[in-house]
Amino acid sequence: MSHQHDTVRAIEWREDRLYLLDQRLLPLQQDFIAYSDAPAVAEAIRDMVVRGAPAIGISAAYAVVLSAIQHAGEDDWKSAVLEEIECLAASRPTAVNLFWALRRMRQCIEDQDAAPVDLLLAEARRIHEEDAEANHRMGELGAALVDSGDVITHCNAGALATGGYGTALGVIRSAFAADKIGRVYADETRPWMQGARLTAWELLQDHIPVTLLCEGAAASLMKSGRISWVIVGSDRIAANGDVANKIGTYSLAVNARHHGVRFMVVAPTSTVDMQAAGAADIPIEERDAMEVLGLAGKRIAAEGAEAWNPAFDVTPAELVDAIVTEKGVVLKPDAAKMKALMSKD
Amino acid sequence: MSHQHDTVRAIEWREDRLYLLDQRLLPLQQDFIAYSDAPAVAEAIRDMVVRGAPAIGISAAYAVVLSAIQHAGEDDWKSAVLEEIECLAASRPTAVNLFWALRRMRQCIEDQDAAPVDLLLAEARRIHEEDAEANHRMGELGAALVDSGDVITHCNAGALATGGYGTALGVIRSAFAADKIGRVYADETRPWMQGARLTAWELLQDHIPVTLLCEGAAASLMKSGRISWVIVGSDRIAANGDVANKIGTYSLAVNARHHGVRFMVVAPTSTVDMQAAGAADIPIEERDAMEVLGLAGKRIAAEGAEAWNPAFDVTPAELVDAIVTEKGVVLKPDAAKMKALMSKD
Repeated sequence: MSHQHDTVRAIEWREDRLYLLDQRLLPLQQDFIAYSDAPAVAEAIRDMVVRGAPAIGISAAYAVVLSAIQHAGEDDWKSAVLEEIECLAASRPTAVNLFWALRRMRQCIEDQDAAPVDLLLAEARRIHEEDAEANHRMGELGAALVDSGDVITHCNAGALATGGYGTALGVIRSAFAADKIGRVYADETRPWMQGARLTAWELLQDHIPVTLLCEGAAASLMKSGRISWVIVGSDRIAANGDVANKIGTYSLAVNARHHGVRFMVVAPTSTVDMQAAGAADIPIEERDAMEVLGLAGKRIAAEGAEAWNPAFDVTPAELVDAIVTEKGVVLKPDAAKMKALMSKD
Repeated sequence: MSHQHDTVRAIEWREDRLYLLDQRLLPLQQDFIAYSDAPAVAEAIRDMVVRGAPAIGISAAYAVVLSAIQHAGEDDWKSAVLEEIECLAASRPTAVNLFWALRRMRQCIEDQDAAPVDLLLAEARRIHEEDAEANHRMGELGAALVDSGDVITHCNAGALATGGYGTALGVIRSAFAADKIGRVYADETRPWMQGARLTAWELLQDHIPVTLLCEGAAASLMKSGRISWVIVGSDRIAANGDVANKIGTYSLAVNARHHGVRFMVVAPTSTVDMQAAGAADIPIEERDAMEVLGLAGKRIAAEGAEAWNPAFDVTPAELVDAIVTEKGVVLKPDAAKMKALMSKD
């Protein structure tokens, strides 16, 4: 399988080890870290060595393989693996792909007497490959919605955040290849700077012109009339079409509606949580205040200042023009349309 | 004259020197730089040693005194001073207080045969004191509009940005003293981090509780229902009530309207430019892309990435609930109301 515009890989499995590209160091350093046990992968997810909802799910799936390899010789291998699955599930709360992938992996060990390492590895590889394939399919579906004009994206919903090609950046790659986009404007995305560090780097690998801007400048950019779509990924989509994504997404959606700019969410159905009726059912991770009180690891705010640091926000379905999944596109999402989508084979 | 909640001073004149608190180093260092010539002050304004529309105007006024002292003994002192006034005027383009203050200073040397140093110093001191007095008056007027609930502010429109007490932070100081505000939420304000570095520090000097947040989180905070007002300063207000202020303000205003949060602009009438009919007449400074491509002085975006770095944006009058000036409050501003305000004595 070979695809254009798809040169970045963040997750690799080789010789019984999981290799994760350390996304905290990009773009200055491109270092892979090797993992041989599941708790270390849980820590890597928590510490954002790997991030992005689909990439977290894929990494956790491979971590279950590591767990099975490690505990295969033990009498109580199954309880040991199940315990490490719980440890992985506790790493981050918002991205539902994590729980979805772990559920698939858990099903592989049910009714098994011996640790089914080969079966688990095949399932993890399938989760990985299915995700990359879903992204290519979504790329086509989403690009078909894009007419012309530049786009804004937020955070990094690219190859780095997924099994390859990307969700939002997959649509952008496909639309760029079809000459429908001239330039991508990328929110730098405080406090982790995924836009500045990851999205700019990833798009430049594929020679797609990218201009960074501070979140605060997006409204002015929309007002200029140059922007046709805001295109973002998601960490969890509720049954009514409410969309959790990186903090700052909701502000973009409000501004998009105000300026007549359309708003597209690109995510595989593994991101859809039909158990969450709406926004209120999606847990929002709050991260350490120091991520906001400091800059590049050094405190810059006065002692005594507090910070509020939610990692995600929820955009209500009524501000979303299109949800693009590998099963199809939902325009103006609502509960009935989401149910119909998820009932498809 | 003594006021409560007013412990910060960024501009001082002592013994024929202008002292500016280096705001690039706050809050880690509190260093004053001494200036004895006008071009150096122009550079300090350009490099943001001093920032904030009223503070820029006051600093430029004192710089004209420095120019007069330096050139007083020369035959062509007047053309030398006028040339340095032009140099000061070219330092930054958006804040109109700069041009307003320089116009007042220029009037002092018209029809003068000898350099009127004492007259110029008296005028600069008057500009400085009038600004501090205006801020206290605006503090009262603005606080009267605030009922209860927490507020969001953006950038730093405080004592550091003015002759003392602050515009937006003046209202916040007065409203806090009247027990009308429990907590101030301060946008960190990329890329210069005036919220994180300056506003948090300044409010903590006066024991006002402050919580920092990334710009992207303000929409979620408004959605929570805790916020009653967004309160900001301005760099230039057009004749129709359009408001230029730090980049990110417009996004806040759009979100405020969407969430039923009210939006207050606090600025002395020296910020009102009746020559600018509306947004299109306000020049928006674009600063070096490296301010966005780097973090804490170190490049973090991939080579090849571009950045768009406008320092200001314009919020249209229809999104503004109140403009508070020392001459009075304009609710739901428009051209007729602004004209009536500016016609008052």
